[in-house]
Amino acid sequence: MIRRIHAVAPPGVDVGIGDDAAVLCPADVTPSQPRLVWTIDEQVEGTHFERGLVSSAEIGWRSFMAAASDIAAMGAQPWCALCALVLPTEVDDASFEEILRGQRDAASVVGAPVVGGNLARGPVLSLATTMLGSCTKAVERRGALAGDALWMAGRVGLAAAGLRALERGKSEDPRLAEALAAWRRPRALVQEGRAMAGIAHAAVDVSDGLACDAGHLGDASSVQIVLDAQALVADEGLARAAEAVGEEALHLALYGGEDYALVAASEGPISGFRRIGELRKGEGVILRTSAGERRIEAAGFDHFRAR
Amino acid sequence: MIRRIHAVAPPGVDVGIGDDAAVLCPADVTPSQPRLVWTIDEQVEGTHFERGLVSSAEIGWRSFMAAASDIAAMGAQPWCALCALVLPTEVDDASFEEILRGQRDAASVVGAPVVGGNLARGPVLSLATTMLGSCTKAVERRGALAGDALWMAGRVGLAAAGLRALERGKSEDPRLAEALAAWRRPRALVQEGRAMAGIAHAAVDVSDGLACDAGHLGDASSVQIVLDAQALVADEGLARAAEAVGEEALHLALYGGEDYALVAASEGPISGFRRIGELRKGEGVILRTSAGERRIEAAGFDHFRAR
Repeated sequence: MIRRIHAVAPPGVDVGIGDDAAVLCPADVTPSQPRLVWTIDEQVEGTHFERGLVSSAEIGWRSFMAAASDIAAMGAQPWCALCALVLPTEVDDASFEEILRGQRDAASVVGAPVVGGNLARGPVLSLATTMLGSCTKAVERRGALAGDALWMAGRVGLAAAGLRALERGKSEDPRLAEALAAWRRPRALVQEGRAMAGIAHAAVDVSDGLACDAGHLGDASSVQIVLDAQALVADEGLARAAEAVGEEALHLALYGGEDYALVAASEGPISGFRRIGELRKGEGVILRTSAGERRIEAAGFDHFRAR
Repeated sequence: MIRRIHAVAPPGVDVGIGDDAAVLCPADVTPSQPRLVWTIDEQVEGTHFERGLVSSAEIGWRSFMAAASDIAAMGAQPWCALCALVLPTEVDDASFEEILRGQRDAASVVGAPVVGGNLARGPVLSLATTMLGSCTKAVERRGALAGDALWMAGRVGLAAAGLRALERGKSEDPRLAEALAAWRRPRALVQEGRAMAGIAHAAVDVSDGLACDAGHLGDASSVQIVLDAQALVADEGLARAAEAVGEEALHLALYGGEDYALVAASEGPISGFRRIGELRKGEGVILRTSAGERRIEAAGFDHFRAR
């Protein structure tokens, strides 16, 4: 559906619809000057969060980090942001201030201040964050080559376990502390994104689940993704959290979203990334376990279809 | 409240919170290279429009023009846009396509394509549009001088009359045709905005009503606004529409929003603008009629307080 919004990248726009962010080349800018990377993300109450399960500050923080992660996934440095807030009447001034505080805290960690915004009334809380970043050359989803290794920075599955814990009222279980923090206070991996710039052939951030987002990278690059199950579950915190919520760690790692890990394709290693698989000729996503290989569905948590 | 989002403009940001758009100076850009102007605007069903009163294409068009008008008000040329759409399940594919068509039509008129976006589910339709523009030097709200004349491009009051007509089921009255078009298909005054760049000391677009938005310009520039009633009602189309909806033309002109006229302060005339008043030492907004002068409230239609 996003592709239908607009089909053609106009002059001055290197990458349009379908990547994590648009890549812009302002007029009169010389080849050596930085490119602009630009994204918009929106988090809507009832779809991306429930006000009962998350604090106002966390709502502000999470929405900001989701946008920053799009910039990080392009190998770019976040620069500044605008935010359009929709506030229902029952969100009082104190909650509003808390939302702004969460945003500001995230902005401070990311190094990209909120420099403007818009306020409107509406029936549910929503936060649309648009962010500009800069880079010499953006890392796109396309460009990965068969023969590349697949690398990941950050962790996957923890945030989904944290959300399950909140939904089931299990947030007191100490095995879930890391998972709760992962869902409540995700971090855009800006430094790791910068580290892959100039090295990675292609990259994507994991917002909708590893299988889904790695699948996007594979589709955009016309290669097949092979994921090593063993590498994905080699995370003790994930194992503990999975046990506590009664789900398989591998399932959480493959299909849980909102961790904002970065996945990149490159020949050699990238600082801050660990190897989780490889790229081959072909299409789709393959899971490699000790029992052999099997094709898996490149699906994740789709906010658009789920509710 | 918008001012509370962030107080300080960081390095590389010439104008932050509180103007129609932020003005950015990318790193390594020389003084002769263009500045970036950046805005976000959001239109929410139930606050800014009712789906029963406006077509899907008009929803797309209006939301795009509202953002473009912010860029025009800075004297900048719109460049490109991103849109975050929130869609309720009951908006079908055909309506979605119509919304995109309205956006694309507006984008084509403005000369700023939609190059990316985001889709999410939510209980009501909303469209957050972020737009980048470029200019040599932005026209801000501050900078107007006592002694300047006040100029306006476009018309005011018509869109409000059009909305009244729709709300009262009077859309068949031929006296309201212009008013309906003004509300349904407003136009960002890009050419007029470009004409004032380098001439106007300060400018603002009229989204919330002339008294309110001219008041913002006066406040930001620390001057008093004097509006000539006679100049405001010298609009036969407005007189006809006012009569048809049973409201005073002057009231519609002063307090009706969503026309996206441009108001600028400058010593001499500006191509495409007509004189509607002047600026003096002092504060607040003064209305000058044949009966003399009186202070008026610098209030308009406030979407945030009204509902």
